[in-house]
Order: sequence, then C-alpha cells, then structure tokens
Amino acid sequence: MPEIGLHVTNSANKSWTVRNVQPVEYDVVLCDEVLDPANQAILGPVPAQGRARRLVVVDANVDALFGQAIRAYFDGNDVEHRVLVLEPGEINKTVEASMRVTTAMDDFGVDRRREPVIAIGGGVLLDVVGYACSIYRRATPFVRVPTTLIGLVDAGVGVKTGVNANGHKNRLGTYFAAERTLLDRKFLTTLPRRHVSNGLAEILKIALIKDRELFDLMEATGEHVLEAKMQRGPGSVDPALEIIDRAIHGMLTELQPNLWEKTLERVVDYGHTFSPSLEMVALPALLHGEAVCIDMALTTCLGEQRGLVTEEERRRVLDLMTRLELPTWHPLLTADLLQRALADTVRHRDGQQRLPLPVGIGSACFVNDVSPQELADAAAALEAFELAQESAVRA
Amino acid sequence: MPEIGLHVTNSANKSWTVRNVQPVEYDVVLCDEVLDPANQAILGPVPAQGRARRLVVVDANVDALFGQAIRAYFDGNDVEHRVLVLEPGEINKTVEASMRVTTAMDDFGVDRRREPVIAIGGGVLLDVVGYACSIYRRATPFVRVPTTLIGLVDAGVGVKTGVNANGHKNRLGTYFAAERTLLDRKFLTTLPRRHVSNGLAEILKIALIKDRELFDLMEATGEHVLEAKMQRGPGSVDPALEIIDRAIHGMLTELQPNLWEKTLERVVDYGHTFSPSLEMVALPALLHGEAVCIDMALTTCLGEQRGLVTEEERRRVLDLMTRLELPTWHPLLTADLLQRALADTVRHRDGQQRLPLPVGIGSACFVNDVSPQELADAAAALEAFELAQESAVRA
Repeated sequence: MPEIGLHVTNSANKSWTVRNVQPVEYDVVLCDEVLDPANQAILGPVPAQGRARRLVVVDANVDALFGQAIRAYFDGNDVEHRVLVLEPGEINKTVEASMRVTTAMDDFGVDRRREPVIAIGGGVLLDVVGYACSIYRRATPFVRVPTTLIGLVDAGVGVKTGVNANGHKNRLGTYFAAERTLLDRKFLTTLPRRHVSNGLAEILKIALIKDRELFDLMEATGEHVLEAKMQRGPGSVDPALEIIDRAIHGMLTELQPNLWEKTLERVVDYGHTFSPSLEMVALPALLHGEAVCIDMALTTCLGEQRGLVTEEERRRVLDLMTRLELPTWHPLLTADLLQRALADTVRHRDGQQRLPLPVGIGSACFVNDVSPQELADAAAALEAFELAQESAVRA
Repeated sequence: MPEIGLHVTNSANKSWTVRNVQPVEYDVVLCDEVLDPANQAILGPVPAQGRARRLVVVDANVDALFGQAIRAYFDGNDVEHRVLVLEPGEINKTVEASMRVTTAMDDFGVDRRREPVIAIGGGVLLDVVGYACSIYRRATPFVRVPTTLIGLVDAGVGVKTGVNANGHKNRLGTYFAAERTLLDRKFLTTLPRRHVSNGLAEILKIALIKDRELFDLMEATGEHVLEAKMQRGPGSVDPALEIIDRAIHGMLTELQPNLWEKTLERVVDYGHTFSPSLEMVALPALLHGEAVCIDMALTTCLGEQRGLVTEEERRRVLDLMTRLELPTWHPLLTADLLQRALADTVRHRDGQQRLPLPVGIGSACFVNDVSPQELADAAAALEAFELAQESAVRA
C-alpha cells in the first residue's frame, strides 16, 4: 500500500494525493439474558458523571413481546431512554423509516460519540437503524440486538446497512459496523415458525458454499432445531448452538477480509443473484431467506446442468430445503425476471456475472457465462421438481 | 493498532472481533480548461470495449452558463451521457435533492464501480451528489468539478458529504472521498462578486488559524483578487493562485491525518461553531462563507476579551473581512441563538466545547469554558464595532 500522508506533485498540474486508512473494529457476542438488568452488555460504558441516555429503536413485534422488559432494563439501570417503534417487515425498509430514526435522534438530542443507539429487532430493523446511524452526523455508534434468526446469523454480523428504494432491494445503504452485536437466542422462542425457516435459509447458504459438516448437521437435525426454535434441547447436546456458531463463524470468515466488497467475487453472495429482484417483485409474499432459498434451488439445478452438482446432491439439497419448510420455486421466477435480475446484478458486480455456483455440497466456484437459455432450463427443471413433489404429496 | 483479522474468544461468552482497515485515496488537481474535449481529466479511464457512459449532475446556474460546453465535452469524447439539473443554493441541500440523484442513477443504470458520476457545481451541489453517490449501492464513485470559490477551496477538497435535515445544517451525511477533484478557476469568471467573497471567507479561515503569510498576502491583495475573480492578472504575478494553493494545502494538511474526525479538536472547525445554526435560521439570507465569517468575527472578539488577540490584530482581522466585502455581524446573532448553537456543537464534539479560538493571527487554541456571559459580551462588542463602522461610513 502506498504511504499514508499528503503527497504533493509539482508538475504541469499541481496536485495533492490524500492517503489514509480507516480502522474498523466490532464485536459479535453470543450471550444469554441480554435483557436482564444485571447484564450490562447492551448498555456498554456509561458516563462517570451524569445520567446515561439511550435512544432505543424496536419494531412493533418486538415492542409487543419485549417492550416491557426493554423499558424495565433501562429503568433498572437508571438510564434516561426513549423507545421509538417502527413498523416491521421488508415493506417498511424505506428511506422514510430511516428518517423517522434520524428525526428521533434529533428530538432525543443524541450525542454523536457517546450515546449509541440501541437497535433491537429483526434484520429489517437492524439494517434501517444501522443506515440511519451511519448517516446521522456522518456516523453515530449503534448496538445491535437481533431478535430473529436471520438477524442473528446474517443481518447482525456484517457491516452492511440499507433501505429499499425505487423498487430495488437495499438500493441505498452504507458499510457501517455496529459497535457490537449481542446474540441471545432466547428471543427466538417467540418467533413464528416460518421466520425460523427464514433464518435457516441463510445458514444453509453457508453450509452449501463452504461447510459440508454444517450441511450434514442440518440434514441430521434440521427438523428438530426448527421445531425447537433453535433452543437447547433436553440433555447436553445442543445442535442448534453448533449450527448458529458455525454459520456465524463461516460468515465472518468470509466477510472480515472483504468488509467493503473490494473483491466482488463473494461466496456469501450465493443465493443473492436473482433473489433481490424476486423478493422485490413478490413483496410481501416472500421473506428474504425464502427468496434466497429459491435462488439457491435454481442455481443448484444450474450446477447440476453444468455437472458441478450430482443428481444425488441436488436431490439432497432440495430435500433439505423442503424439510426446513422453505420454498424452492415461485411462479414469478420467469425467464424475463431472471434476465432483468441478472442484468442488475451485473451492474452491481462491475460488469461481470461473478455468479457463485455450488460445487458438490460445501464448495463453490464463480462463472461469468450463464446464458438466458441455461437459466430458463434451470427454472423449468426446478418447476418440474416442484410439480413432481406436489403430486407425490397429493398421491 | 491491534492485528487485522477475525479474532475468536472462547470464554463464558463466545465472541468474535472483526478488525480491518479501509484504505482511502483521492486526488485534488489544479488544472486548466477541464471542459476542453481534448482534456481527459473529467472522463478518466474509459472501457477498452464499448461506449463509455457518464451521468452528469449540475446545478441550474452551471447549466445556464456551461451546459452547452458540458454536453459538447461528452459528445466530443463519444460518451453516452445524461445531464441531471438540480436547483442551486443552500435551501435545496435536501434529502429530496439527493434522492433525485439516486433515482437518476437508477434510471441511467449506473454501474456501481466503473461509471463515476460527474458532479459539476458549487459546494451545495458537490455535497449533495457526494452524499447520493456514497449511499447508492453503498458507494458509487464520483468526480468533483467545483465551479465556485468555496467549492474549490473547501467543499471540493475534503471527504465530507451531506444534506441539511430537520432544520440542521449537514445533519445527514457521510465521509466519502471523490475519486478526484479538478480545480479550474476559469469557472470563477462567471461568479457573482458576492460568491467570490463567500469563498474568500473559508480561505481567510485557513489564514487565521495556521498561515500568517496567507493573511499578509490577503491583506496586500484581497481587494484585487476579489475584483479579478481569482484570475491571473497581467504580468507574471499571480497572487490569486498562491492564495488558492496555500488555502488548499493548509486545508489538506489538517484534513489528511483526521479524515474521519476521530480527533474532535479540529482547527478547521474555526468559524464553524456558531455559524451552522446562524446560517440555518437566517436561510437564505446568508451564504455559508458569510455565516462562517460572522462566527470568526465573533470569536476574534472573544479572543480579544481573553487576551489571545490584541486590539490591533482584531482591528486588522475585521478590517480585512470588510474589505473582502464579508459581513461581520448579523441581527440574528442573539444570546439565545449563541447558546443553542453551542449546545448543539457540544453534542457534535463529544460533550465538550472544543472551541477553536484565534491566538494572534495565524494560530489557534481550543477552549472548553466559554460562558454565556462571555458570548453575549463578544456579540455586544461586535455589534458596537459594526455600528461604529456604519456611522464612520455615513460620516
């Protein structure tokens, strides 16, 4: 790397080159009972003098389930606080929602360095609050407490924030790390079953691209951990914890060297080539993980067509998706949508497809030469599997 | 600095710490004739294959004066382009304006890595476009071409972007460097005289806090360079170029080690403690540099009260401001406004005033103990000087 500093050139055109590096550091912590007033993890450092102040942002689901416990936590720690409640769901991942947060930050008078905003909620809420904090006074710290499985293993562990705009998924956003993310799976006990499946889709992604053992574990325990909503079962075995742990570790291993996506070939983009467009046109029918799962099912078929995945492997993958109660096909997955989605992704990946495809189970490669016909064939194959399965279920 | 990487702790609470550094590099180039189609500086690297594409954003003033030359530049280089025209002025430095830019980026189909947006305009336009680019797909490159003096020496050289919101100056924004800034002072020939003075205020700031020689040069040539709109005069002397050069160099010397404002004691914040609030309440009466100048006049009086600045130095400073046709007082500079402005600045500076005060001419210090009474006294002194000067002019 060239030397940090201010470099002056006195040639025909006098010029200055400014070079510096911005250090980024953040923590992701597995912990229990974050809402116990004795646990200081959410609060973090408080001023030696004067009363601590925190703006807390939650979604309406969290407010209904944990609003009282949240207020009791801050009251119990004698922290002046205000709770802003946002509407939940992808459809509310908007610029307007982020402006509600920044306006609340103004009204509360948040100090831009010492009063981190506390975001407690699902992936949408974490992304919206992270975005708002990243732009408020050009960066105000925040702490993330995910309450959904997708928040725990995906939205809560990276540095991407964002809101949807102009009909596009995460079209506006920033790279902005939360000071820390606190992962307490107790929140998941109140989660609708479908939302547990939704999170399992992002975990399955990590398994498919880089962790064969995680896939085996999900194959062995998937229905059980879904049923148990990722809680510890009776006895000493705790497959849900191992699944969460491996998913986060795999995700962070991929993200850490490439936080700002300088490298556009990202295996964690697996399942995220066609799904952003599908999710947006299907809104609100598909949850994020569901759209990702359909994308993975499609590219698994594409992999089979290319001989990267065997028929047996494809069958195992689609079977596991079904057992995790995830969709593998959607009627809006048309040839036209696939083309438009790919074109937009190409603009996002510097003019190339850089499409991650599975290699067997637990590995991936990148290709740049997927044709419209190939996509249409894969979609047709996927639909055929779907129809065959439906008729098998009916039979 | 701790080691870059992914650090895992397996204590009671398993945790991951993510560490990385983001390198930032950008160029600020003094150059001539940037709109000459033979000059490739604006365009930068173009694809080896296919036609280059650029979205260009200008303000209405620039469009009226240079719109034809801008279109001819891109036509002459066979670049597919679209020109988005925004309304000029601080009053249009809004979230809505930034959304117009991101929507145009969507409509044009900007590639997030290879098609930098070209921003040509004053400080407001550069800040708005920079903000839009920083959030579009979480960072899309842009090139800055300032057309005003304040753009050349201030908005165009740092990494701060922003828009006003909730009645607060630059309340939403990012730290986001343009790939390069091209400084062509030919644009200034069409600038209203008042806007040349406006830019001279930010140059005077650099002189007052860190460059006594620059102050002397401005004292010797200020009226002349204002009259000449910063163009080269007849003969070989070119004080305007030296003034611009020194101002940029001083600014970049301060900014480079502190691009993300980790250090909140910034001498370049001189004149920016009370002015953000004054500028917003007076909108659109005061230009940015004018509000900054009033803040500097006030803190010069404060410095005199504290014995940091002699009576003679204070007189020289206020005289030069007047000769540069800049205001030194405003009726909205009330004790109440000063208190509210200081309170907001304290929230911006991590709970302390960190108020830069002049030490003589060309140096500065920071104080944290300015009292309401002291502020009111300084404002009263400033008003008295203003009244004395007005009656002297009338006499």
